[in-house]
Amino acid sequence: MHPAQDKSVRPGELALLRQIRGRAGLGRTPALRVGIGDDCALLRFGPDEEVTVTTDLSIAGRHFQLDWHPPEVVGHRVLARGLSDIAAMGARPVAAFLSLGLPAELTRAKGRGCAWIERFYDGLLALADTHKTPLAGGDLSESVLALADIVVVGAVPRGRALLRSGAQPGDWLYVTGTLGGAVAGLARLGAMAAAGRRRPPSIPTSLLPTLAAHLFPQPRIAQGLWLQRRRLATAGLDVSDGLSTDLMHLCEESDVAAEVEQAALPVHPAATLAQALHGGEDYELLFTAAPRMRIPRRIAGVPVTRIGRMVRRPRTGPAITLQTPEGAQPLEPHGWEHFA
Amino acid sequence: MHPAQDKSVRPGELALLRQIRGRAGLGRTPALRVGIGDDCALLRFGPDEEVTVTTDLSIAGRHFQLDWHPPEVVGHRVLARGLSDIAAMGARPVAAFLSLGLPAELTRAKGRGCAWIERFYDGLLALADTHKTPLAGGDLSESVLALADIVVVGAVPRGRALLRSGAQPGDWLYVTGTLGGAVAGLARLGAMAAAGRRRPPSIPTSLLPTLAAHLFPQPRIAQGLWLQRRRLATAGLDVSDGLSTDLMHLCEESDVAAEVEQAALPVHPAATLAQALHGGEDYELLFTAAPRMRIPRRIAGVPVTRIGRMVRRPRTGPAITLQTPEGAQPLEPHGWEHFA
Repeated sequence: MHPAQDKSVRPGELALLRQIRGRAGLGRTPALRVGIGDDCALLRFGPDEEVTVTTDLSIAGRHFQLDWHPPEVVGHRVLARGLSDIAAMGARPVAAFLSLGLPAELTRAKGRGCAWIERFYDGLLALADTHKTPLAGGDLSESVLALADIVVVGAVPRGRALLRSGAQPGDWLYVTGTLGGAVAGLARLGAMAAAGRRRPPSIPTSLLPTLAAHLFPQPRIAQGLWLQRRRLATAGLDVSDGLSTDLMHLCEESDVAAEVEQAALPVHPAATLAQALHGGEDYELLFTAAPRMRIPRRIAGVPVTRIGRMVRRPRTGPAITLQTPEGAQPLEPHGWEHFA
Repeated sequence: MHPAQDKSVRPGELALLRQIRGRAGLGRTPALRVGIGDDCALLRFGPDEEVTVTTDLSIAGRHFQLDWHPPEVVGHRVLARGLSDIAAMGARPVAAFLSLGLPAELTRAKGRGCAWIERFYDGLLALADTHKTPLAGGDLSESVLALADIVVVGAVPRGRALLRSGAQPGDWLYVTGTLGGAVAGLARLGAMAAAGRRRPPSIPTSLLPTLAAHLFPQPRIAQGLWLQRRRLATAGLDVSDGLSTDLMHLCEESDVAAEVEQAALPVHPAATLAQALHGGEDYELLFTAAPRMRIPRRIAGVPVTRIGRMVRRPRTGPAITLQTPEGAQPLEPHGWEHFA
């Protein structure tokens, strides 16, 4: 039985927290000593581990649309953002924390259906279960604007985290999976909404290849761990803001420049070149490795593509150059940026 | 120079993040290996330490008022909520993370003054500095509603965290400081706002004793550490939702009941009895200890008061009883609850 359908449950925060606690408790692990219910969660790590922490804020109307996105998709995407940052460090996820602000009507069941919040947790906890990441705490508040701030805590052996700052001139540049699929799917969904077709009860299977990268991005936990354990990569991060912007972050933190081969880019079948270059939220791993390192074509089932190389940072001129059939062009960061 | 007053700074997220990074970097500690600027922060703990994590969401109109509260006060209070949870576990704070959603106008300087966001960070970072807690990461997004989700990570020796679940029948019940002062100050500030006196540029010093508990609550980090190191307490938590509600949490988690002596309550000079019983946000520590344990009258400069004792949980009847001059009365939890 969905707790939200139990009429005896009073609609207060305590009752909601009890529901969440009951569901989240299923995922308890040895590392999680105390979860929801105390002032803090209490986590235990190995003596040779360092702790990774990431926070990602998702806001209705900006990171998700209440009238386009099924609640399960919002839950999945909120946690995927956090897990992807853990993957980018080569860490294993240990626990997640969720602060949720919701209008009261999203916490109440409508007719025979489940409440929005229940379906949101369905999506979030399914992905948490896939990656053995218990929901260990968080906060809940009524809010006129729906929002979710996800925190994921991970662990990585000392000194082995994959940082943004380790790339060297001469390293090759790689990316997992394909690029541009998430923003292409978002554009398609937006066009459907603009045409008056609001969120359908089911999505036609013919559209799934176009929409899956946007609706259900897969954080590359296994791939990040694989790279970390074999010490193959010199630097890495996840493609959350778009290749051009994230590669600029990597160049800045490593004090290098990059040359990208346009012809080598693994453009998603539904995406344009511009979407692959600048579209965000693909949550693929972008990493560098010395040329002598043998990087396989697939890591844990996901294709890996060499898309360019790192070079010395010029005194003047662009940090990123795109090699096109028409010659070399500067690649400006045009990815996602708030307050721009 | 305030970075926000530098006209060359473009008003984008990256520029704002750079400002914050520059300011937060001042607080770097040996435990913080990598702070703002990578996918995750990277923290290092001692081999015998457990890690405490807490998240607290603050939303404009609900947890703070943009037209009543000076931005420094909002920043202070946001971090105080998180630090207080760390204190309640008997842990030491290691790092803080802040997810901030703000309307664009709060990120821009008006005339010769500083931007709201700058003053918010002034308040938050001053408290962070007091408790040697670097700001190690977070997220930033434009939002029509101002909101701040604070995460604080702490450390405590293995098996030594002060939990809510350890109270035993026969234990005495203690509280630090005074109760009701925060809600009394909030009521006074609300009355000033309702009378048309919006946030004054300076608060009359005659009002400070009334307002300080609300405007600048002090997380009891030193007191929590003191109790943990001496193994004096059996259970503890912080008074964030109000004595009646938080004591109910403690009774439920420990499966005990409580008797509170009304005459013993350290009521704040500006507060009523009802405010002391049910008013939240005092951020004092509420803890239990065996009667043979000698608890001093002050811990790290803050008064400690014995206010009652823990008893067996009755099969029926109230979990909390208030001993008044007129006899024993059930004490119902009437503290703060969202979605109620």
